[in-house]
Amino acid sequence: MKKPLDWQITATDGNARAGVLTTRRSVIETPVFMPVGTQGALKGVRFEWLEGEIDARIILANTYHLFLRPGIEAIREFGGLHRFTSWDRSLLTDSGGFQVFSLTDLRKLTEEGVEFRSHLDGSKQFLSPEVSMEVQAALDSEIAMVFDECPPGDAGHERTKQSLELTARWAARSKKRLDELNSEPGAVATGFFMPDADSSSKNPVATAPGSELNGRQSLFGIVQGAGHLDLRKESLDRTVEIGFDGYAIGGLSVGEEKPVMYGVLEFLTPQMPADAPRYLMGVGTPEDLVEAVGHGVDMFDCVIPTRNGRTGGAFTSRGKINIRNAKFALDDEPLDPDCGCSVCKRYSRGYLRHLYQAGEMNAAIMISHHNVAFFVETMRRSRAAIIEGTYRIFKKDFLEKLQENDAAFD
Amino acid sequence: MKKPLDWQITATDGNARAGVLTTRRSVIETPVFMPVGTQGALKGVRFEWLEGEIDARIILANTYHLFLRPGIEAIREFGGLHRFTSWDRSLLTDSGGFQVFSLTDLRKLTEEGVEFRSHLDGSKQFLSPEVSMEVQAALDSEIAMVFDECPPGDAGHERTKQSLELTARWAARSKKRLDELNSEPGAVATGFFMPDADSSSKNPVATAPGSELNGRQSLFGIVQGAGHLDLRKESLDRTVEIGFDGYAIGGLSVGEEKPVMYGVLEFLTPQMPADAPRYLMGVGTPEDLVEAVGHGVDMFDCVIPTRNGRTGGAFTSRGKINIRNAKFALDDEPLDPDCGCSVCKRYSRGYLRHLYQAGEMNAAIMISHHNVAFFVETMRRSRAAIIEGTYRIFKKDFLEKLQENDAAFD
Repeated sequence: MKKPLDWQITATDGNARAGVLTTRRSVIETPVFMPVGTQGALKGVRFEWLEGEIDARIILANTYHLFLRPGIEAIREFGGLHRFTSWDRSLLTDSGGFQVFSLTDLRKLTEEGVEFRSHLDGSKQFLSPEVSMEVQAALDSEIAMVFDECPPGDAGHERTKQSLELTARWAARSKKRLDELNSEPGAVATGFFMPDADSSSKNPVATAPGSELNGRQSLFGIVQGAGHLDLRKESLDRTVEIGFDGYAIGGLSVGEEKPVMYGVLEFLTPQMPADAPRYLMGVGTPEDLVEAVGHGVDMFDCVIPTRNGRTGGAFTSRGKINIRNAKFALDDEPLDPDCGCSVCKRYSRGYLRHLYQAGEMNAAIMISHHNVAFFVETMRRSRAAIIEGTYRIFKKDFLEKLQENDAAFD
Repeated sequence: MKKPLDWQITATDGNARAGVLTTRRSVIETPVFMPVGTQGALKGVRFEWLEGEIDARIILANTYHLFLRPGIEAIREFGGLHRFTSWDRSLLTDSGGFQVFSLTDLRKLTEEGVEFRSHLDGSKQFLSPEVSMEVQAALDSEIAMVFDECPPGDAGHERTKQSLELTARWAARSKKRLDELNSEPGAVATGFFMPDADSSSKNPVATAPGSELNGRQSLFGIVQGAGHLDLRKESLDRTVEIGFDGYAIGGLSVGEEKPVMYGVLEFLTPQMPADAPRYLMGVGTPEDLVEAVGHGVDMFDCVIPTRNGRTGGAFTSRGKINIRNAKFALDDEPLDPDCGCSVCKRYSRGYLRHLYQAGEMNAAIMISHHNVAFFVETMRRSRAAIIEGTYRIFKKDFLEKLQENDAAFD
């Protein structure tokens, strides 16, 4: 039977997995870091770089932001987010749930959905599983996410339990509505994007089984439950029972201590379906990614490469540095001597620091570029290690290198 | 005798000239628009784009800004501005004069030089012809400019005359000091940059007579005199008498009416030496450039492509548009349907407007890119028309097209 996605596991190494995820638009090797294009653009980095040098096969866009601006009618007018933005490869759209519950103050939650005020103009807005799916269908993403409630990370057991039950009911409604939308005439995308020969040879992948896909959007369920392991299990069971194309872990990296996150991953991932991709939402630092890959997570997204890039923070193989630091003023080394990105091949820390201090946006542009390249490359190296069966050694070396030189930079 | 620059006139058409300017680092076809990298970077546009798609052979950097930050010792430490910034092609540095007289409030002008307070931290600073040459020698630009006094555009005849006399004395001191600096051991650059085969074939140029150059920095004199034609003539005579590698026209586009500028150009350019390049400083709009080329100007610089780009202003072959305008919200045309730049080939006005409204820096990045590409391309098309002997027709069509559709956009 034709499916929205094809998911193949290429190799496993302990709990870590190397896979190939094929959507109707691109072939994505996993583990994968998905750069975040919140409003339809990766902040400071043109798509040309993402497609060429960085060769990202999938990026994320945010339903909440695009729903409010430019608005879904504008996106429909342009024929979806791909055509609007010109990004031809895969898109994953979140559902808007996380933003509604974190960005807006005024909201009214009912079984039906959530009424809230726009952070842009205070206007009254409404999102529900059905509305979110309508928006995501209009956005025409390859991977849509169920509309979930996101309780605070420090919510108690009872509140968290109520929340995940609501999320489970909303997940079923999300699935039903997206199915309907994707059954409507003209709803199914027909284009299939293949990376060009040049990037294919850089990242060899099996021939894409495009003809095996049904052209519909895929939908991922979201497992909630905060740090309560019993609730995580309950949420997982209820989500798997509904049945999705992939499973996401939500509600982590929201302020809890690192051991809590790693504990949830250690507990949860072995119980998640092996035959579907696993996506850890909104995570995280390079350490987090490499740890989570070790637990069997396949997909990640996070804004920190660009958010830190804009304030001068660079992630390197030897730990994080901040280019504002005066000690870099005369430093003619690249941000990361071990990085092969176009920024590290050419520009010195001293020059980038000068640009930052001088208020030139090129500092943000280039540090963000390096950071995204570093995150994507870290996942590429992780994948290679998994295939070689050396992931434990890779992880140990990677984490040690991050640590050992942190001191030298501080 | 070996010279710092080689200047050949390829063709003339009326007063317009097509030439080839060869520095120790690049071959520059004229007329040429030089993008402005004030602080060692073109705002929002990475060098990779400038070298590749846009194929700029020379950019400008500002002595005043770099003198104050990062400071000349830092630049020396890195081995000059080319090595600091990684820009391998030609650099033209202004002298700091214009900025001292326009950016700073507190200054004390004497025969020796000018004392002023930094606009950054209020610290007391001093620039003179000698200091400016020392800074420009450290910056290692291919074209240095004499240190000039820039009186207000509305200064009377007497004040303007005094000023140009001071500028003439300073020009002689500038030349003397740069000669000394370029005679010091190790001062002369040895590298010679040739564009790669790909860009050469796109812009065929004669084999660069690199071996005919003496490796020194060249120095341009500056003709002042505001709108007083007799003073312009006097300033020109005094400047030519000293003798420079090229001649710049300063003090235009500083608030005077357009006919004043065009009048000065019409009067002045035919009297300027034909065997040296002519540079109209800080000008201007596409109309200004095309008019001035008609008067025989060869070189231009201006910040408006990037300054306007950052506030949503796009220069197009049909006039200037502002992407903030609501009528572009659903517009799927490129900024300029007649432009072949990478932004116009791919992105719609509707998308760029969304990015601008959403506060995404990618709007500034991409509109600035288009604008710079449009300015550079306008000069390339002017050159082609001069060589074909059709400049008058080109200019008429270009200016009409700019005008006739301005209305449609407003």
